Parts: sequence; C-alpha cells; structure tokens
Amino acid sequence: MSSFNAVPLTRLIEQFERLPGIGKKTAQRLAFYVLGLPEEEAKAFADSIIDAKKKIHRCSCCQNLTDSEICRICSSPERNKRVICVVESPRDVMALERTREYNGTYHVLHGALSPLEGIGPEQLTVKELLERIKRDGADEVIMATNATVEGEATAMYIQRLLSPMKIPVSRIAYGIAVGGSLEYADEVTLRRALEGRSLL
Amino acid sequence: MSSFNAVPLTRLIEQFERLPGIGKKTAQRLAFYVLGLPEEEAKAFADSIIDAKKKIHRCSCCQNLTDSEICRICSSPERNKRVICVVESPRDVMALERTREYNGTYHVLHGALSPLEGIGPEQLTVKELLERIKRDGADEVIMATNATVEGEATAMYIQRLLSPMKIPVSRIAYGIAVGGSLEYADEVTLRRALEGRSLL
Repeated sequence: MSSFNAVPLTRLIEQFERLPGIGKKTAQRLAFYVLGLPEEEAKAFADSIIDAKKKIHRCSCCQNLTDSEICRICSSPERNKRVICVVESPRDVMALERTREYNGTYHVLHGALSPLEGIGPEQLTVKELLERIKRDGADEVIMATNATVEGEATAMYIQRLLSPMKIPVSRIAYGIAVGGSLEYADEVTLRRALEGRSLL
Repeated sequence: MSSFNAVPLTRLIEQFERLPGIGKKTAQRLAFYVLGLPEEEAKAFADSIIDAKKKIHRCSCCQNLTDSEICRICSSPERNKRVICVVESPRDVMALERTREYNGTYHVLHGALSPLEGIGPEQLTVKELLERIKRDGADEVIMATNATVEGEATAMYIQRLLSPMKIPVSRIAYGIAVGGSLEYADEVTLRRALEGRSLL
C-alpha cells in the first residue's frame, strides 16, 4: 500500500476498512470504485453521509431513526399506539415492517443488555419506554429482541420492569424457519419449536 | 424502507447499495453504522471521498493512480525503468508489490479489451504504453493481465503491437496455486500447469 505513496487513496481505503464486515480487499475494491465515479456522483455519496448524519435522529416517541420530530409510524393514524413492539435496532423495525402484518407501534432499544460489553439499561432506551408507557398506557408489549443470550436477557429484564403495571408482555415465537429443514436446525431451536407446537 | 419516511437515510442506504458487491442488507448495515459514528468521524469519511477524488489522478508515466505528477514507483531510483509489467488495474500493482519480488516498473491499462462491453484499445492506456516505450525504450515487457478471455486477448493484442519493435514480451506463468490441491484445479489450469512444467 505504502508503495503507492498516495495518502488520499490510502486514507479512503482505511475509511472503508473501518466499516463492519468490510475487509482489506473489499475496502480496496470499494475505494477504487468510488475513485472511478464521475465527480458529481462521488460528491453525492459524500454528501449523503453528511446529510444523513445531520438530519437523522431518534423519534421522540419510539426512538427509531427519523428525520422528523415524530416518525411516520408513530404519527400514523392507522397504527395502534397501544401495542408496542420492542426491538433492538432500527433494522429490526425494517424487517418487521416488510411482513406488512403488524399495525402497532415500535420501541427501539438501540442495543441489548450485555454486561460484558458494559451495556446496561442506561445505555438502552429503557427509561424512555417506561415513561412512554406510563404516559400513554399500553394494551400489550411484544418483546421482539433477538433470540441471543443478550436479547433474551433484555426481554426478561423489561418484562420484569413492566410486571407491576399489569400490562401483558408477550415474546415472539421460536421455531424452525419457514422453508427450513429440521436436519439443519440446532437442537435448542428444535426443542423450542416442539414446546411451541400448536394443534392443526 | 418507505415506512421510515426518512429520506436522508434512504438515500444513504441507496448510495451504499450502488457499490459493487454490496447488497440491500449490507447497505443497510453500513448506513446504520455510519449514522452511529461520532459526528467528526462521519465527516472524516465523507471528506476522504472528496479528498481522494480531488487529489488522485493517473501517473503521467505508468498511468497508475497517484497524488503526485509521477508516482513513487516511476520516480524511484531503485526501480528498473527498462522492465515494464503491464497490468489491468491499480489493484494488480498492489498485489504484485506485495510479493516484494519485482523491481521493474508498471503500466496500468485500466481495463482489458472487451468488444462486448465496448472496450477497445482507445478505452485503455495502450497509446500511452506505446509512446512511453518509443520515448524511453524497454528491455522487456511482462504481460500480467488476468488469465481471463479478456486479459488473454489484451496480452496478445499488445504483444502483436510491440513485435515490430523487437522488444521481448513475456507472459506470467499459469499453474496451480501454491498450497492448492490438484483435485480442485480446473482442467484448463491443470493442462497449462503441465505444459509449463520445469525440471527439478
């Protein structure tokens, strides 16, 4: 790399290398691609970073990312504000919205409890969730955190916090993926799939 | 995505999606990562794009990318200017430099002949190569284009152009990869590896 002696190029490659899941070779490929773009398109790319960073912030209600004070989901008259689906990240909201099934609202925690990484309730938007429920009430809180140790712990933690309020707290189902084969499912998932069986 | 109604975010995701080898999900992951960066780091990323685009151009001698008039390889007194290794892209230069074996110079074609994609000699830096050799002379030209149909055709084409000048033109060796097993090598490579065998 140093054989290039082209500092701006090295720096651009390094910037791409810092992105999650992008290794040295991919970073090079991306940097060269950007260099090959017409001037105005490279500028549009850079501007989109600055612009998104400047305008995107958390919805004051559900903490999802938005460019308005209240996000479109929270401000939609068609969404049921009394059902709150708690997720770890904005990407989880996107995934659930793609199902076109859910018409309640969300609450984005921006992470999951992880004592080893120093992530406690204060690093998440747990306080905002409690305040929101106290202020607006809720008929059901659906815990849709990931099926990881951290996601489970977070779901349990929030369920316990909410229990004095007598609000039903549910957890999304575990099981084998649709189209997935039993052969490749791990034993814990299979056990949960058995436990969660329902009558046909 | 549209459920977000956050245009700057959608735009940022789209910008990442345009990069080669980056799909929808990866683009989302990268966009959210950038949004999560501190303000100054996101700015540094955007600036590195603008900066590289502004300062990086082709070396007037070898056509490799550089931020100076003549790149470091071409201007190094330790490199043999009379040996020219012809490659398709700046990344190939990087790969060859990593071997720490080669002390000649390069010529970057910025592509390979591909009539189907409308890439002829005029789209490559073939003219610059010929002018350079006519001006400075050369003891050997090493064709190190890719072992693809396009790379081969390009090597053949340039070899034919250079033949009136009586300059030796060589081609890098074909064979199985070091550490690679015969079992997984394709038959064309194996045939070439057999043809290129040398006495032990």
